[in-house]
Amino acid sequence: MAPASQVFIAVIGAGGVGKCFLSQLELLSKRRPTPTLALAYIATSKKALYSGDYAPIAIDHALSALASSTQQPLAPPQLADFLAAAPAPVVVVDNTSSQEVADAYPLFLRRGLHVVTPNKKAFSGSYALWRDIFAASAASGAKVYHESSVGAGLPVISTLKDLVETGDEVTRIEGVFSGTLSFLFNSFAPAAGGGGGGGSKWSAEVTKAKELGYTEPDPRDDLNGLDVARKLTILARLAGLAVESPASFPVQSLIPRELESAASGDEFLRRLPEFDAQMEEIKAAAEAKGKVVRFVGSIDVATKQVRVGLEEFDRSHPIAALQGSDNIISFYTKRYGSHPLIIQGAGAGGEVTAMGVTSDLLKVLSQIS
Amino acid sequence: MAPASQVFIAVIGAGGVGKCFLSQLELLSKRRPTPTLALAYIATSKKALYSGDYAPIAIDHALSALASSTQQPLAPPQLADFLAAAPAPVVVVDNTSSQEVADAYPLFLRRGLHVVTPNKKAFSGSYALWRDIFAASAASGAKVYHESSVGAGLPVISTLKDLVETGDEVTRIEGVFSGTLSFLFNSFAPAAGGGGGGGSKWSAEVTKAKELGYTEPDPRDDLNGLDVARKLTILARLAGLAVESPASFPVQSLIPRELESAASGDEFLRRLPEFDAQMEEIKAAAEAKGKVVRFVGSIDVATKQVRVGLEEFDRSHPIAALQGSDNIISFYTKRYGSHPLIIQGAGAGGEVTAMGVTSDLLKVLSQIS
Repeated sequence: MAPASQVFIAVIGAGGVGKCFLSQLELLSKRRPTPTLALAYIATSKKALYSGDYAPIAIDHALSALASSTQQPLAPPQLADFLAAAPAPVVVVDNTSSQEVADAYPLFLRRGLHVVTPNKKAFSGSYALWRDIFAASAASGAKVYHESSVGAGLPVISTLKDLVETGDEVTRIEGVFSGTLSFLFNSFAPAAGGGGGGGSKWSAEVTKAKELGYTEPDPRDDLNGLDVARKLTILARLAGLAVESPASFPVQSLIPRELESAASGDEFLRRLPEFDAQMEEIKAAAEAKGKVVRFVGSIDVATKQVRVGLEEFDRSHPIAALQGSDNIISFYTKRYGSHPLIIQGAGAGGEVTAMGVTSDLLKVLSQIS
Repeated sequence: MAPASQVFIAVIGAGGVGKCFLSQLELLSKRRPTPTLALAYIATSKKALYSGDYAPIAIDHALSALASSTQQPLAPPQLADFLAAAPAPVVVVDNTSSQEVADAYPLFLRRGLHVVTPNKKAFSGSYALWRDIFAASAASGAKVYHESSVGAGLPVISTLKDLVETGDEVTRIEGVFSGTLSFLFNSFAPAAGGGGGGGSKWSAEVTKAKELGYTEPDPRDDLNGLDVARKLTILARLAGLAVESPASFPVQSLIPRELESAASGDEFLRRLPEFDAQMEEIKAAAEAKGKVVRFVGSIDVATKQVRVGLEEFDRSHPIAALQGSDNIISFYTKRYGSHPLIIQGAGAGGEVTAMGVTSDLLKVLSQIS
């Protein structure tokens, strides 16, 4: 394989992350003349833009051109055919959270198409899909990177891989993996200010977080813990555990059972105050011990236990001292001993998520050009 | 350049880091059959072991074979000649802290030899050497990585490079970069326990740190701040500042002027109690404001100011809350806003330093094989 002087980029998804990625790609293509980065395909779930002869799409006008395009997106098998016939290496950048696209990674990889993505679905779905993806990558040599699937641009996955590949023994991973739940508990039960201080009622905090745009449109999609469970599934697998799916370990939901069937997110929020006493009790129980409650995920590698839910922490613990909507991930390993390797910072947002995707793209480029 | 099925490794230095690296290399070569990792050269400052026909040295017996070898180490130009004639790609692993070896990197790189190292000297010496190294790498395509030159195995340099290369704007870098000074101040002026609590006299803390093996043989080599200044020089340059040398910005030394010329480390420690009142005063001044004092390095990218020395921090600040001999590095960037990306953990020690070297080696291997 000769070093490529040109690399084709196929972008799927043009939402918040997709738009930020395109602007980072534009900057990258200006800064690094070699290899030439040629945008050969861009699509949303409704539209696409591409040319049968792979003529590059101007990156700085890709979004407006896509908006006025009348082309339909190609289904994964057709997209794989189209891209595999390109006259240079191709990197598929999946900026969606689509299961359908994720399911196509083994196909893309078998056809020699590299994949970089923040999409958690492929790596936290069935273990069969996980194995299929990495088997396809090993067979064809095509690369697959997904740094932003956990902690957005924070170097979480690359660090875990480095620990494992250099022969360290990861014993435990623990952290706050949801920006939304970080924000909620840092406000609801702040570590600073002493017992009883700070924090409105739980339902008021959830409503505020939604108004600030920190939650999904229906806050239950954050409160059910599934997003955190997906991230834990990915890290556990990288640490060597054959976790079958995010449903194969205990995940505590913060949705009161009575509100699981509420017709809408708004209906849920309207009725949530009825259950404030429950969360108040949990908070008070922790405070009585001089602690604060946080929503965390943890992986105990030796006992193969993965769990997601509420835990109590001393006020001086780094997890208790977290601020805003930051994530924190602690790796306990044999080499690092009792003091973990800690990574902390914003774990959500278009720009930082796109940064993880762009740095993954750079990794692929360094290996093929 | 066809993917290499064999890669030669040349190891310089077999001290604490070198020994740990060899055991990680042994594990790596067993786990990853491709490419074959062949140890072609190993040397200390006094001895070497190599064969004119590049016959691989058994990694698991390399240290004992080296101990009984009668070969002299090759001077850098001869070493470059020897390695450049090898029938496969070569990675030079410099596990020394030798300026002479560091000065040879441009030569190695120009000859197509890849370099990975924890040696700070090359990257924190003259700016001319820095430019020479990266110019040589760009010209030949040979790779150079030095993750462990700052924060040992912590992903500090790779993260800073990712931020810069993906187009983020790093505005400020701040942190505790010395495990020794971290340990000293975490003990001398602990954040927990309230005003006046904890902490023996400064001289007693230094003596204890030396007894525990946390300092250099002469503790003044830690207290002069130069090691921190070297690390700041590296990070500032990666952030885009043309820092001429570690001597071109203010570095506060914790060595009392009167003891700079003490004949030995022991003599220094014997007389240090005479100056305890000075450190006690600095600690009390911070405590009077509800703060603690820490020895930090900071880089303000916009104003191009780099400084190393004592600063006061609120007790709830992550820098104040550090424990043991951990390092902490905070990256403030445009994307991450007011909440920095933080990396924390052990920043010294043979195993974790070697881990950074081994992960650098893996990066090189992924690009050439």
